[in-house]
Parts: sequence; C-alpha cells; structure tokens
Amino acid sequence: MSETVLGILASGRGSNMQSILNNISSGRLHAKIGIVISDHANAKVLEIAAVAGIPAVCIERKNFATKQEFEAAIAAEIVNHEVQLVVLAGFMRILSGYFIGLFPGRIMNIHPSLLPAFPGLNAHSQALTYGAKVSGCTIHFVDEGVDTGPIIMQQAVEVLPDDTPDSLAERIIKVEHALYSKAIGLYCDQRLSIEGRNVKIIE
Amino acid sequence: MSETVLGILASGRGSNMQSILNNISSGRLHAKIGIVISDHANAKVLEIAAVAGIPAVCIERKNFATKQEFEAAIAAEIVNHEVQLVVLAGFMRILSGYFIGLFPGRIMNIHPSLLPAFPGLNAHSQALTYGAKVSGCTIHFVDEGVDTGPIIMQQAVEVLPDDTPDSLAERIIKVEHALYSKAIGLYCDQRLSIEGRNVKIIE
Repeated sequence: MSETVLGILASGRGSNMQSILNNISSGRLHAKIGIVISDHANAKVLEIAAVAGIPAVCIERKNFATKQEFEAAIAAEIVNHEVQLVVLAGFMRILSGYFIGLFPGRIMNIHPSLLPAFPGLNAHSQALTYGAKVSGCTIHFVDEGVDTGPIIMQQAVEVLPDDTPDSLAERIIKVEHALYSKAIGLYCDQRLSIEGRNVKIIE
Repeated sequence: MSETVLGILASGRGSNMQSILNNISSGRLHAKIGIVISDHANAKVLEIAAVAGIPAVCIERKNFATKQEFEAAIAAEIVNHEVQLVVLAGFMRILSGYFIGLFPGRIMNIHPSLLPAFPGLNAHSQALTYGAKVSGCTIHFVDEGVDTGPIIMQQAVEVLPDDTPDSLAERIIKVEHALYSKAIGLYCDQRLSIEGRNVKIIE
C-alpha cells in the first residue's frame, strides 16, 4: 500500500505537525506530508517544514479580495500536491462550505476539549471558567459548523484544582499528539467509516 | 462529629439511593438518611427505604394546585427531618428557583454525562446520537438551570462501538454509584467550597 499524502494547514507553532512528522520518521505512522500551508508568514510550522525538507507555502488572507479566492488558493496547493487527507493542526480560520465541499470526508481537525463541550476559541479557558473537572481532546471530521463534525476519537484529561489555561493546555496537548497520529493512521489504513454523525472504526 | 443528615429525592428504582445506603451501612460514608421523598407512589425507592427502616414519604404533584405548593410540601419534610443535604437521585422533576432558594448550596444532583455536554433528559441517547466517543457522569450543586450548577466531580466513561443507550447507562451507573457517595462524603466532611462556578475540594 502506498503512503497516504497529507496536507497540513497550520497557523502557529506547529507542535501537532512536529508530532506527526516524528511519528512518520519513526515508522509509527505510514503517511507522507505532501504540503504544509500556513496563513501566517512567520509561523514556526513553516520553519519546521523547511528543516524537514517538506514543501511549504504561506498563503495570506490579505492577498485575496474574497475568502473564497483565499480558500481556492489553498485548495489549489492541496490538489497540486495530490493530498488525500487535509489535516488541520492549529489552523485558526473557519473554513467555508465551499472549501469543505471540495474535500468531503477528507478534512480532519483536533480540538482541545471533549466536544460538544467548549467549542470554538479558548477551549481551555472555557473549561476552567465553567468549572469542569474533566476535559480532553477530540479529533473529528470537519463539517460546516464550528467544531461540530463527526467525532473520530476522544480522550479525557483531568482538570486539576490549580490549573491555568496554559497548564491545562500543556496536559491536553500531550494527549493530542498521540491521538492525532492514531486517527490519521486509521484514515491511512482505510479503517474509518462515516455513518451520519457516527464514525466507525473498522476492526 | 455527628452524622450529616441526607434527604433523598427520587422518582424511580433508586439504584443511587441503594448505593448510598450500602456505603453508609459499610461505614464508607459517614451520614444518615433522614427522609426519602418520591413523587411516584410505586417508586421502588420507597420499598428500599421501607426495608431499611428509613422514613419515606410519597408526595405527588397531582395532589397540589400549584408547583410551589407541591415543592413547599417537599421542603416541609426536608425541614422537619432536619436534613442538611438534599440529594437528588433520579428525581425527574425540575425544581423551581423558589425551592432551590430555600436550600442554597445544599442540593446535589448527579447527571449521566460530562456536563455541559448532553444536559436534560436522555443523556445516554444524546451522547450516542451525537457520536461521542467519551461520556461520563457529573455531580453538581443544583442551580436554577437544567444541569448547569457548579460541578463537584466528574468522571469519564468510554463509549463503545456497539453501545445502546441501555448498555452505556449500565457502564455509567457503576461509576455514578462510587462517585456520588464520594461527593456526599466530601460535603459531610465540610470539604467542599463553592467559589462562583468553581467547586474547590479542601485538602
């Protein structure tokens, strides 16, 4: 079986991208990163890609008149690099129905809470403000809502009494790293089946 | 330290009430059930109380002109039995602000999901319909919203691929039983402090 080609969209430091890369290097994840796309010119994720010799491109919203043109440019890179799975790794923009419709069932996202609890921005702060004692992370396929798509995997993480958003984020991101590569691996092995809102893992 | 007096409100089979009773009998929970109140004449929880020799009363909504009169009758039993903590154990009615205001910070509820996810009725079905991979249970103080009060404890429970609402409920209720007595025990030991939405456990 040939390697599944991933396209990674990221806005920031790219710790999930680094983790995916490590898992590919060590042979735990049988995939290949075809392209890394960032919407920020100085995103650390672009440096990581450069060091690893992976094609990377910066596509900035400000260079396009409309959101659709911006997304079309991203989509063109994805298509040109024969990406099979689009992996959102801290991509801080909401993708439109237009973009999502181009890659049905082929866009994955990770979110640092147990969805449907605490969707959207600042999930860690939301959990602490609510007084939750358990949070976690969710990997899901992307639909047109904000963090509402069919859930692939979830893992709970304890909230500790003295947690700050940063300390909670640090505990959750360790789980994110392991879980995201697992979910991507299941996709690469064609073991994920979407049935309505339910994602079945084929044994 | 004298035993904390509990008042239990339940509508159904009373499995949480039975579990609390077992933990009191075995000495794991230093408390006393002062009164069991059910809104259903044929609730199994009334039988359990009778067998255990615990005062129990049925207060039916239909015998009162208004909700407030119904709740006042419940409140009277609670006061008469010198209840210190009101424990909702499958009580299938939403208590009004009037009732809650009579016992501020002294009403506890258990809910079979990780709140704020899946509040209200049929939490297990909600979780399965959503396609959640993790659910659990939450013990919280009761406020005027539906399952919105400050969270005391939560514990995650895995959702399995072939779960039905019943099989998920069965897995979660085992955790409920252990967790509810723990939370009640913390209250009895005066180790719970409510700070806004955050419940701190005093070490």
